[in-house]
Amino acid sequence: MFSFTKINLLCQPTQSAWLEQALDNLDLILLDHSHCERKAAGVAVNFLFRYPAHEDLVYQLTAIAQEELEHFEQVNQWLKRKNIPLAPLKPSPYGATLKQAIKKQEPHRLLDSLLVSALIEARSHERLGLLAQHCPDLELAKFYRGLMASEARHYGIYWVLATQYFDRTIVDLRLSELAQLESDTLSNLHPEPRIHS
Amino acid sequence: MFSFTKINLLCQPTQSAWLEQALDNLDLILLDHSHCERKAAGVAVNFLFRYPAHEDLVYQLTAIAQEELEHFEQVNQWLKRKNIPLAPLKPSPYGATLKQAIKKQEPHRLLDSLLVSALIEARSHERLGLLAQHCPDLELAKFYRGLMASEARHYGIYWVLATQYFDRTIVDLRLSELAQLESDTLSNLHPEPRIHS
Repeated sequence: MFSFTKINLLCQPTQSAWLEQALDNLDLILLDHSHCERKAAGVAVNFLFRYPAHEDLVYQLTAIAQEELEHFEQVNQWLKRKNIPLAPLKPSPYGATLKQAIKKQEPHRLLDSLLVSALIEARSHERLGLLAQHCPDLELAKFYRGLMASEARHYGIYWVLATQYFDRTIVDLRLSELAQLESDTLSNLHPEPRIHS
Repeated sequence: MFSFTKINLLCQPTQSAWLEQALDNLDLILLDHSHCERKAAGVAVNFLFRYPAHEDLVYQLTAIAQEELEHFEQVNQWLKRKNIPLAPLKPSPYGATLKQAIKKQEPHRLLDSLLVSALIEARSHERLGLLAQHCPDLELAKFYRGLMASEARHYGIYWVLATQYFDRTIVDLRLSELAQLESDTLSNLHPEPRIHS
């Protein structure tokens, strides 16, 4: 059985400036969180379209897509409860920067896609953990704490899939490059508060 | 409450030649069914991306996407049980023909997308019903019967959403055009056995 405590994919921890920005803008963070869950579901579903004959990937990512949709629904219930209407939101450059780093040729594309998803889930896990710890709304804090476990499972699954389809040395090398990029992308706080600002 | 018995979206019923073709190729139909469920989930998720602020649509289609993924998982379990490997499959022209008929400009695009989805779900409902009735594998027949109710609910939801966002007269007019196209597309049996051949 895969032990989640054994891997820490992230190169650098989140800086305290992000937490301050997030706590000052909890409603906006909640709206952005809804977009993040929808995008996470979309990413998992896209894998199913792109690799329809990769059995393990299909089984695992069907389950992840289902969970992300469940979280999307739960975050939307929180928005409803707080009278925050669903609305489009300009994303921070984070997702686009990481997506751009995904190589276009197979099999690199599959490896990079799995690792980028693992990193995004790992960062979400870390940041939802910070919100769970510091959010003054205790009910909402509890909700964030509940989601954290899933995010950890998700980044574990993406990482394990990468090691199933590729040699461990290749995975480790590429992961270190992408993890560096991921941390660099967050080194300057984005002015608009987002889960990944 | 919406009564599903009150609407019959389809212009023409399925011809008996399709049922014969399907019963002669049950394994292939099962594999195609897996692709259909994945595509149905993809379509529902795409609506969430394209109309992120349409609250009713978001709530209803999140639920549909979840159910389609559940069916995708169930069909894949059937494939595993029958030792049919997951594999890509060239689709019949059905989906592409209907997609092409969707107008590119909003709000027509939303109306057409909802109605095309309603028609595809209605046809799936009808054909899974035929398989449920005639499939010689009684366990599989029972599975098809179980899915039928969901498909009926799905086409009802797409149709109700159309009538929520558009005048009933506009919906009825466009539905009759698209339903005619949908039936015409199936009037000549596609040589390769598919759920929508």
